[in-house]
Amino acid sequence: MSFYIKQIEFALPINFEKNIVLKSKNKNWNIKEIEKKTGILKRYISNKNENVITLAVKSVSKILKKIEKNKIGFIIFVSQTHKNDLTSASCIIQNHFSFKENIIAFDLNIGCSGFVYALKIAQSLLNNNSRKHGLIICSDTYTKNISYDNKSSRPIFSDASATVLLGYSKKFDFVQFDFGSDGSGSSDLYMLNKDTNGLNASKRNEIFMNGGKIALFTMRVVPKSINKILNKNKMKLNDIDLVFFHQASKYVIDNLIRIINIPKDKVFVNYKYLGNTISSSIPIALKQASKKNILKNNFNILLVGFGVGLSWGSTIIKWKASR
Amino acid sequence: MSFYIKQIEFALPINFEKNIVLKSKNKNWNIKEIEKKTGILKRYISNKNENVITLAVKSVSKILKKIEKNKIGFIIFVSQTHKNDLTSASCIIQNHFSFKENIIAFDLNIGCSGFVYALKIAQSLLNNNSRKHGLIICSDTYTKNISYDNKSSRPIFSDASATVLLGYSKKFDFVQFDFGSDGSGSSDLYMLNKDTNGLNASKRNEIFMNGGKIALFTMRVVPKSINKILNKNKMKLNDIDLVFFHQASKYVIDNLIRIINIPKDKVFVNYKYLGNTISSSIPIALKQASKKNILKNNFNILLVGFGVGLSWGSTIIKWKASR
Repeated sequence: MSFYIKQIEFALPINFEKNIVLKSKNKNWNIKEIEKKTGILKRYISNKNENVITLAVKSVSKILKKIEKNKIGFIIFVSQTHKNDLTSASCIIQNHFSFKENIIAFDLNIGCSGFVYALKIAQSLLNNNSRKHGLIICSDTYTKNISYDNKSSRPIFSDASATVLLGYSKKFDFVQFDFGSDGSGSSDLYMLNKDTNGLNASKRNEIFMNGGKIALFTMRVVPKSINKILNKNKMKLNDIDLVFFHQASKYVIDNLIRIINIPKDKVFVNYKYLGNTISSSIPIALKQASKKNILKNNFNILLVGFGVGLSWGSTIIKWKASR
Repeated sequence: MSFYIKQIEFALPINFEKNIVLKSKNKNWNIKEIEKKTGILKRYISNKNENVITLAVKSVSKILKKIEKNKIGFIIFVSQTHKNDLTSASCIIQNHFSFKENIIAFDLNIGCSGFVYALKIAQSLLNNNSRKHGLIICSDTYTKNISYDNKSSRPIFSDASATVLLGYSKKFDFVQFDFGSDGSGSSDLYMLNKDTNGLNASKRNEIFMNGGKIALFTMRVVPKSINKILNKNKMKLNDIDLVFFHQASKYVIDNLIRIINIPKDKVFVNYKYLGNTISSSIPIALKQASKKNILKNNFNILLVGFGVGLSWGSTIIKWKASR
């Protein structure tokens, strides 16, 4: 392959939220029923001093203990909740760590499918000369725009940053990808800009998700995308050792397992005590699976991201241990 | 080369602003002095019904008169002023024109260097199968966040969208790029979020530019970047037929011409009646130069983007006429 994942580190906000908090704030919610559907018992909630930059600084700092910063040739910052003051988050990170000036740095505005898109772009930036290494930094703080009484989103989303160090591989065999976009579903997951005209500025912007429609969309496009990426690699589902879905929720992942008809133990999940961390979700799952030795050297792994846009992407890579 | 520019179309807001308006609103401004420095006599200002999406729809519509929409394999939307409601602008465009579902669509948050970055990424997405064609859509409406009395920015920035249709070329000879980022200059061009805490929501966010510092940065990094990209292509400045700088202002471009020591007639400029249109600036210049037959078939052209971030990128391509 043309790249390999050399290291993954992640950072979570200090504060987390268990479902008992949701119950205390929403007396009429049936928490047991919600838990049964989401499978999520705990989520991380950024405080007012934490944002996509502070979280990213933490995950990048951990990576920089393992590699000299001057070896980094590019920074792709994947986020949907970076405060837009024109300056890209990637340039803020470049300056914070004093990365070399001739670095490629840019931001991608993509949600839960973001990591797979960033992998595709990163593959094209890596080379055997000045850019043998690069970073994909995922960081989002959706919960800043989700109120306690937002029943479709508050029990699901969680804040996090994950940084992935990629290395160039001499074996110049391009990894295959499958991608898709369906903007007709944009109203199924979006943020309402309450204060656009300045009238309701005391109310913050709020994220809305039509969970049922998003689930239906996922079940429609993800199995097709998996078939395509298997075909592109001339592989069968049996050749895949471990699947990493975007950790949307138990309901979504269980249904995908059923539709695709894959043994449950071939699908790694970590949503239970972490929630849905947007584009950080797949990298954190990779890190945790590797640490638990469930993800092993030379495994063929299938990564599938899907979400806001609507947008999806899948790829198959060979896992190289030593991290 | 691995790609060529097949078509460029652009769209401008209905309303424009001449400097007499600035004079009438700012009695103490010396407009003649400002004009001497900026070289800009007219700028396009989006009205309340126009935004990055409506402008992009216009420029994309013109492109779609020349190519079937089902031939488009990807959409890269370059913008810094897309209203962030989570849905990417590229997915909105995908849906608006009913582009096929298996399209790659994502947004890049980059400013005046954005077109060159998008070219690099586009090069990696084009192939001889499903993605023989793709779109780079640049669209920004900076002026929505620039008040009449904003002396550093109001006489400069202009709203626009440009759409560039790229085609795959069989001659698989990758175009070279040079890139750089310097986040330490982020405070020289940024947007102040006045209503972050909801206290001043009646005041809109305002863009601030330290024009002097941006000019100094440009003169420091751009000549170096040009040298690098010439070396990568084993070319000398004499081998370049026409240079397209980002149309920052007369002051910046005149100084670059002086420092690089290139004949003035080898540098195309169009800022006078258009202003600085952020990432649309280079594509619009290419289109106008081609239309005027100043830019001719097989010309070696040097493209140099630079601006907010701070961020810069340069490349040399061979121009193919027939558009």
